[in-house]
Amino acid sequence: MNKKALVAFSGGLDTSYCVLHLSKVLGYEVHTITVNTGGFDREEVAKIAKRANDLGSQSHKTVDVTQKFWEDCLKYLVFGNVLKNNTYPLSVSAERVFQALAIAHYAKEIGINTVVHGSTGAGNDQVRFDMVLQTIIPGIEIITPIRDNKLSREEEIKFLQSHNVDMDFAKAQYSINKGIWGTSVGGKETLNSRQSLPESAYPTQVSVSTERTIKITFKKGEPVALEGQQFSHTVDLVQELNKIGGTYGIGRDVHVGDTIIGIKGRVGFEAPAPVLLIKAHHLLEKHVLTQYQLSWKEQLSVWYGNRLHEGQFLDPTMRNIEKFLLDTQDNVTGDVWVKLYPYRFAVEGIESKYDLMSSEFGKYGEENTGWTGEDVKGFTKIFGNQTAIYHQVKNKADD
Amino acid sequence: MNKKALVAFSGGLDTSYCVLHLSKVLGYEVHTITVNTGGFDREEVAKIAKRANDLGSQSHKTVDVTQKFWEDCLKYLVFGNVLKNNTYPLSVSAERVFQALAIAHYAKEIGINTVVHGSTGAGNDQVRFDMVLQTIIPGIEIITPIRDNKLSREEEIKFLQSHNVDMDFAKAQYSINKGIWGTSVGGKETLNSRQSLPESAYPTQVSVSTERTIKITFKKGEPVALEGQQFSHTVDLVQELNKIGGTYGIGRDVHVGDTIIGIKGRVGFEAPAPVLLIKAHHLLEKHVLTQYQLSWKEQLSVWYGNRLHEGQFLDPTMRNIEKFLLDTQDNVTGDVWVKLYPYRFAVEGIESKYDLMSSEFGKYGEENTGWTGEDVKGFTKIFGNQTAIYHQVKNKADD
Amino acid sequence: MNKKALVAFSGGLDTSYCVLHLSKVLGYEVHTITVNTGGFDREEVAKIAKRANDLGSQSHKTVDVTQKFWEDCLKYLVFGNVLKNNTYPLSVSAERVFQALAIAHYAKEIGINTVVHGSTGAGNDQVRFDMVLQTIIPGIEIITPIRDNKLSREEEIKFLQSHNVDMDFAKAQYSINKGIWGTSVGGKETLNSRQSLPESAYPTQVSVSTERTIKITFKKGEPVALEGQQFSHTVDLVQELNKIGGTYGIGRDVHVGDTIIGIKGRVGFEAPAPVLLIKAHHLLEKHVLTQYQLSWKEQLSVWYGNRLHEGQFLDPTMRNIEKFLLDTQDNVTGDVWVKLYPYRFAVEGIESKYDLMSSEFGKYGEENTGWTGEDVKGFTKIFGNQTAIYHQVKNKADD
Amino acid sequence: MNKKALVAFSGGLDTSYCVLHLSKVLGYEVHTITVNTGGFDREEVAKIAKRANDLGSQSHKTVDVTQKFWEDCLKYLVFGNVLKNNTYPLSVSAERVFQALAIAHYAKEIGINTVVHGSTGAGNDQVRFDMVLQTIIPGIEIITPIRDNKLSREEEIKFLQSHNVDMDFAKAQYSINKGIWGTSVGGKETLNSRQSLPESAYPTQVSVSTERTIKITFKKGEPVALEGQQFSHTVDLVQELNKIGGTYGIGRDVHVGDTIIGIKGRVGFEAPAPVLLIKAHHLLEKHVLTQYQLSWKEQLSVWYGNRLHEGQFLDPTMRNIEKFLLDTQDNVTGDVWVKLYPYRFAVEGIESKYDLMSSEFGKYGEENTGWTGEDVKGFTKIFGNQTAIYHQVKNKADD
Repeated sequence: MNKKALVAFSGGLDTSYCVLHLSKVLGYEVHTITVNTGGFDREEVAKIAKRANDLGSQSHKTVDVTQKFWEDCLKYLVFGNVLKNNTYPLSVSAERVFQALAIAHYAKEIGINTVVHGSTGAGNDQVRFDMVLQTIIPGIEIITPIRDNKLSREEEIKFLQSHNVDMDFAKAQYSINKGIWGTSVGGKETLNSRQSLPESAYPTQVSVSTERTIKITFKKGEPVALEGQQFSHTVDLVQELNKIGGTYGIGRDVHVGDTIIGIKGRVGFEAPAPVLLIKAHHLLEKHVLTQYQLSWKEQLSVWYGNRLHEGQFLDPTMRNIEKFLLDTQDNVTGDVWVKLYPYRFAVEGIESKYDLMSSEFGKYGEENTGWTGEDVKGFTKIFGNQTAIYHQVKNKADD
Repeated sequence: MNKKALVAFSGGLDTSYCVLHLSKVLGYEVHTITVNTGGFDREEVAKIAKRANDLGSQSHKTVDVTQKFWEDCLKYLVFGNVLKNNTYPLSVSAERVFQALAIAHYAKEIGINTVVHGSTGAGNDQVRFDMVLQTIIPGIEIITPIRDNKLSREEEIKFLQSHNVDMDFAKAQYSINKGIWGTSVGGKETLNSRQSLPESAYPTQVSVSTERTIKITFKKGEPVALEGQQFSHTVDLVQELNKIGGTYGIGRDVHVGDTIIGIKGRVGFEAPAPVLLIKAHHLLEKHVLTQYQLSWKEQLSVWYGNRLHEGQFLDPTMRNIEKFLLDTQDNVTGDVWVKLYPYRFAVEGIESKYDLMSSEFGKYGEENTGWTGEDVKGFTKIFGNQTAIYHQVKNKADD
Repeated sequence: MNKKALVAFSGGLDTSYCVLHLSKVLGYEVHTITVNTGGFDREEVAKIAKRANDLGSQSHKTVDVTQKFWEDCLKYLVFGNVLKNNTYPLSVSAERVFQALAIAHYAKEIGINTVVHGSTGAGNDQVRFDMVLQTIIPGIEIITPIRDNKLSREEEIKFLQSHNVDMDFAKAQYSINKGIWGTSVGGKETLNSRQSLPESAYPTQVSVSTERTIKITFKKGEPVALEGQQFSHTVDLVQELNKIGGTYGIGRDVHVGDTIIGIKGRVGFEAPAPVLLIKAHHLLEKHVLTQYQLSWKEQLSVWYGNRLHEGQFLDPTMRNIEKFLLDTQDNVTGDVWVKLYPYRFAVEGIESKYDLMSSEFGKYGEENTGWTGEDVKGFTKIFGNQTAIYHQVKNKADD
Repeated sequence: MNKKALVAFSGGLDTSYCVLHLSKVLGYEVHTITVNTGGFDREEVAKIAKRANDLGSQSHKTVDVTQKFWEDCLKYLVFGNVLKNNTYPLSVSAERVFQALAIAHYAKEIGINTVVHGSTGAGNDQVRFDMVLQTIIPGIEIITPIRDNKLSREEEIKFLQSHNVDMDFAKAQYSINKGIWGTSVGGKETLNSRQSLPESAYPTQVSVSTERTIKITFKKGEPVALEGQQFSHTVDLVQELNKIGGTYGIGRDVHVGDTIIGIKGRVGFEAPAPVLLIKAHHLLEKHVLTQYQLSWKEQLSVWYGNRLHEGQFLDPTMRNIEKFLLDTQDNVTGDVWVKLYPYRFAVEGIESKYDLMSSEFGKYGEENTGWTGEDVKGFTKIFGNQTAIYHQVKNKADD
């Protein structure tokens, strides 16, 4: 009886190679799985399944974890306003972790103890896959043919062609990874520090020229309506907002960051919905949360995002932080208006019954009802007490 | 002999009232001081001095602290990429503290122990002035007629008119405060949470429609050249960049934040140079600093900005943090290219001999020279060790 | 009809003065309340009630909030291992907040809008009482006769004597405040920086000379048993541990800290149970929590303790942090052995099914089962990658 | 011509094996180096040199880096009051890094590109050595025979005996590592979670029974005198204090912590001087630093200690933090009195001209000169403003 292996399959060159290499060279009975985190439509999913079959997969499984991805992760990225290095919504990073989780659980379910992924030895994804797999399935065998054999693109193509595999081997000018939380774009420009991506590199081209104001409604931190229209699945709202924002060219940028393996890396992305939701949500929070809440949220969320990026999603601290973040969203309810222009947007303002900027309690710089100028004088005396004492002591001591 | 008082004088309604109130009502011999932090040009300074004289000031002093303001404070806001609440360059906050410092030192120098400022009881400025004054001159008497007597604009005008003061009493539609680090804009829209400022509220109107790429050169964290042209005083570079960016409408936004006195407040601003410098500087840092440096800089700088905002500039911790920030800038040397468009900009890329993204050490996702895929496998094993152990222990214990 | 006032009454000089002053001088109908946070026994409570009556209180209410104090606060101080400045279990700080809360809720319940407390103008307690009262009852009138009139002890005594009040006016050598979470001790030594408290200043004297090892059992972070004996109310366990530890002179120290009002202050304390529970709990956590959990717990808990100290208990961030802390305690279950000696103790070790130091996964420095030396070599290569790159780039650039 | 290798040599079993293995089996010309960080006296150093020679080392170098260790590292551990997990002064961790640094620099100096250390694959030391070596000498070859060949103690002995090496092969009951910053003690008790080390396991036995108060004088954060006697080299003061404290059994504990490789580990230690200096220094700081300084110092120092522990000493962030810490020590000047008892000590008090607890500015809880009760009322109003507003808004909104 053959040894069995489960290949994480995307239908691309690397994972096609893996399927064939495992069955033809290593002699495994190969099964395949594709995990959809919102980047594939129905047609693409079917095409991938067919290819797996054509390549000789004994069984192919498609899992759609998009809504789970929202519930268990993306939601918290919105609660935390997480943009890595103040820029990147962690589009790919988060996705990979949830793909690895779905693969690990499926492998466990069907009793396969060998998992194969197409990562190279030069990126972050290998770490994310390995970390999750070895945690969920202790003692698991992980095979990564591209990494293990340091294969070049050309070698992979040659091998596939030698087995009469018929697929489009033309290299795209830009490598694209599409998911619900953003599409990453890599190309020759992102391999150096100086250049920016040309307009044409972005998959979604700008197609409108008129301004438009949209209303996003949040309930306990989650977006629940666009222009007053409720969505029963939040992921549908996100996809709709991706569509709207995409036509404006919103949410594009190039992220420069520290990879898990210690080098610096750059990646372009377009992520209309993540950027719009996070900026709108953040403005609402500035109105309804106390300054202490805002401060701690920021610190915990930056850390949460960085660990997610590094594949440390399964450390229990992540769960502890999620409890914190969830609890802060109790009052994050209200409407936010965002004005869209080609290539940019402005978050205009908010309305919320939890708004702490209620004019009932004084208008900043104008008038105040809850306290007096005398109160502020006393406040300042005490608030500055230690600094004043410090300087008196210091001046005397240093004399 | 009369008691003497030093009035912090800006030439506006509130401080004009203070001069007259102190001399005519409280019977002080009034001296005046105007501290320029880059917001007044030569003509305005002369006009303010003349008005002080006309109102009966016994002596008027003009102090220009713009370069000192850069050296002792703004420089560190660039080093720290400080944008309060991820938005506001602390334009007014920082300025007030340095005005208060100059006033305090001048009062000490000329031996006057009573200082008068025009703050109301509803804003942040009162706290900043009081905090600095009481620290630099222990036991100082601070008089704030507008705050003390809860005066309305109308009452001030009536009093000035009754003393035959001739000035323009028409209220501007937007209250503007101009300084080198940004111009704040307050109006009826900023008093509520929903509205944004109309185009016309911003003092600098957009006047160009063509794109332009500019090169900003940094040396140890400080901007030293624009388009290759060196500036002997950094403040001149900042002013030049304010001019360029202003014509593009860059650096505008509305900030929502927690005031020192506990309420939420909103303020519009235009700050082209601060925003451009900080974003360009930050990108350069992402290339030349280690991830640990970036992480700690962020935490310390956010705190530094918030304490500056609150008038706690004289706490010695601020000096300690400045030492930290200065030391981090050792390698922050290089060129940054920024592309300007009407109402927006993009930081394109950088060149620096300290760039850690050197292709010598491997290209992200492409190839690597300094380590192998086997190294990463080992790394992942150890990096994920604790989480894997945690889950094994937990699963067994909870069985 | 008379105006009504509710006096926070402890039976001591200051609050006795308040009762009489409010009724005799200010003409209020005075009601009194005593909040027991574990410092008073049944007899003392009765005595206080009688005194309130004797002084003319129209109604006296005793509220015992000790168990609630545990559930809503002390529990989290254990979860967070909170010792302010690494020393002080916040004995008095926490207690005052819960007394203020009970008073505020009672005042609201019986519809009295004037609350009186005996705080002076020189300490932390005034801030804690005022902060809680003004938050729970917006617009409340707070009267503090001792603070308002800057009364000396002698003046208070004279006034009480003039109204024929008969109580022991002799000043104790040390001012003592007893509560379940520790007894504070102030005296002439704590008013300077040099001296320590003499043995005799501590209310509980050392009475044993033999060593003893006790076993404390924790379940999800809470102590549930001593020497295997379960306690149905945790506060009874705490009181029992206070008794045991007290006879050993354990948990004594002098705390030096920053008061809310900006000066430094010193206070002695004996707090056997808090110190023993926190140290035992902390050791257990070092075994069952991941390093990330330990790190964030520490940061959040220090902050939590400091805000509690400052009377900011009602800021919603405190609730958010409690959610975090609670979630971290999921595995903090096990036994801890503590050896008691006169004046000191040692936490010996722990047993827990959640112990991550299981020898199954390798013994530190001895052998390892889950990974190899080769794995560590790879780990080190990647873990040190950025630093190595940094130095190579730096050396070359600085050449 | 032979390949050359530099062996880090301590004279023990593992490094003796390395010398012989490199020369006899791998055919290297072996040179040796011993780095003294204060743990070896003159006699031991000579003995180690002789053994190296006997084993066939072509040249043996002894480097004493004790004072440099103080200047570049230990000093900052005092400034930062660094006790890992609130317990452990990082005795071995810090030492290993400085040994690796001295070895790397010596290898570079004499042009040897192969470095050998005796680490196993189960501990932290391998990581520290590798990290430092690969950073200082890019492309270095590191050989670790014990780790590489997973050798047991018995195998090593057999090999050495087969080459007629004559040394004491008896295994000590406890493995001891002695250095200026503490002596670590490992044994069968530290391999489980429950047991504590017996009295006899500690190298220094308690030999006094009388109490003694000593005065430690600090100048800008560094200890400069004991009992008024100045020391020209701080390391001599540390060694003297180690002697004094050792006779009292002070500074002993068992540390439980997270190793670099992800498992939990326990180690006993005795570190009289580190513990006494840190606790004395910390008390002095509580008096002379502002609360903001204390808070940031704590956060930065905990992190500094953890990275040092992990071998990340060469990351430039460590230099940045040192600048911060150094700057905070400006006023940390004064005397501290510490009372020693058998097995325990108490830091009694301090005297410093920088003491912020000067009675000039008010005595806590007693009287105040710089502000009034009215000031505090105003302070509280403003300090509690946001929380009060929050609850009013919340109560209304949730109605």
